[in-house]
Amino acid sequence: MTIRYPNGKKYEPVQQQITSKNKNFSFSNRGKTLEEELNESNEFYLSRSIAVIHKKPVPIQIVHVKYPVRSAAVITEAYFRSPSTTDFNGVWKGKYIDFEAKETTSRTSFPLNNIHDHQVEHMKKVTEHDGIAFLIVKFTSLERYFIVPYDYFEEKWERKIAGGRKSITLKEIEDMSIEIEAGFNPRLDYLAALEHLLQSPIKERIERQENE
Amino acid sequence: MTIRYPNGKKYEPVQQQITSKNKNFSFSNRGKTLEEELNESNEFYLSRSIAVIHKKPVPIQIVHVKYPVRSAAVITEAYFRSPSTTDFNGVWKGKYIDFEAKETTSRTSFPLNNIHDHQVEHMKKVTEHDGIAFLIVKFTSLERYFIVPYDYFEEKWERKIAGGRKSITLKEIEDMSIEIEAGFNPRLDYLAALEHLLQSPIKERIERQENE
Repeated sequence: MTIRYPNGKKYEPVQQQITSKNKNFSFSNRGKTLEEELNESNEFYLSRSIAVIHKKPVPIQIVHVKYPVRSAAVITEAYFRSPSTTDFNGVWKGKYIDFEAKETTSRTSFPLNNIHDHQVEHMKKVTEHDGIAFLIVKFTSLERYFIVPYDYFEEKWERKIAGGRKSITLKEIEDMSIEIEAGFNPRLDYLAALEHLLQSPIKERIERQENE
Repeated sequence: MTIRYPNGKKYEPVQQQITSKNKNFSFSNRGKTLEEELNESNEFYLSRSIAVIHKKPVPIQIVHVKYPVRSAAVITEAYFRSPSTTDFNGVWKGKYIDFEAKETTSRTSFPLNNIHDHQVEHMKKVTEHDGIAFLIVKFTSLERYFIVPYDYFEEKWERKIAGGRKSITLKEIEDMSIEIEAGFNPRLDYLAALEHLLQSPIKERIERQENE
């Protein structure tokens, strides 16, 4: 089945072939992975000249390549490497955007064990250089999506490092993140959510609520 | 041989294994590819908190993966895909930086045939969104390095599209680019050259020269 974006470009899934649970395609968006939803949203942003944001290729350590006569080079031995940066980056309104996308099947909390140390380090550095770093977290069972700003994530990461809980509860995420509404086109308008976040930073919002 | 960066991190070449001409390592920088030189420079920038710029992984289409018991997944069939974006991107002083690195063995001109249409399209879009897009061109035989700003490159690309010459002459590059001085650490201080370029855009420089 050939899937095409609205701009006619063929959709070429890469990751998909290597994970087994993505196979339950349906005509709803239910079967789609967060990565697919974000790729579609990014294609939309690109086609409407809203932003230029791409998923980075999966890092691979190539060991052997064959060069059959008259055909394309074939990689015959390679290994997945752990990424030293995040999944997505690009430019939006002159700003550098950098984020990691993660799904969880949990209904109550987001486990921190599938974020790598060097990814956190990367997001920290991006923030120091005035880039905008965040996580997009999908609670698949709840079909809810959140932008978790890096500054907030850092607190919870440090809590874990200090021996505290190894996850962020849904309640904490609800309080300190911006929820992204899922729609049709773009599927996930995360830049609209981010705009909202930048106009009204969460910490200021909470301070206002406390003062009221 | 294990090569380590000044920060102690192991250097893991990826591209290197798949091209044959990179094998002539020597203790000078002569044997290094432009990609290696830029990776080293980026490691330097990262370690000194100057910028967060990384090379993107090579895009691969994975077809078969084996999961041997008790060992890492092995990719047993995969193909190189043509990149839809440029090689390097990141953030520097809050600005989005995006560039493609190309070498040529020619002593007189930079051929345009190894730049893909969609890479040019990508750089155009980055520029439209107020990112900074450029090429870094190395004349390997001359050991000279240039930052070619996208705006200037675009003119020459359009000349090619219109049926004109399929390369940019070294003279044209000398006139319209900033030369990067090769050094030790960082090997290629391309951000210093870029800073210079941003402070004194080439077109203004040329206008000034014409008015003098």
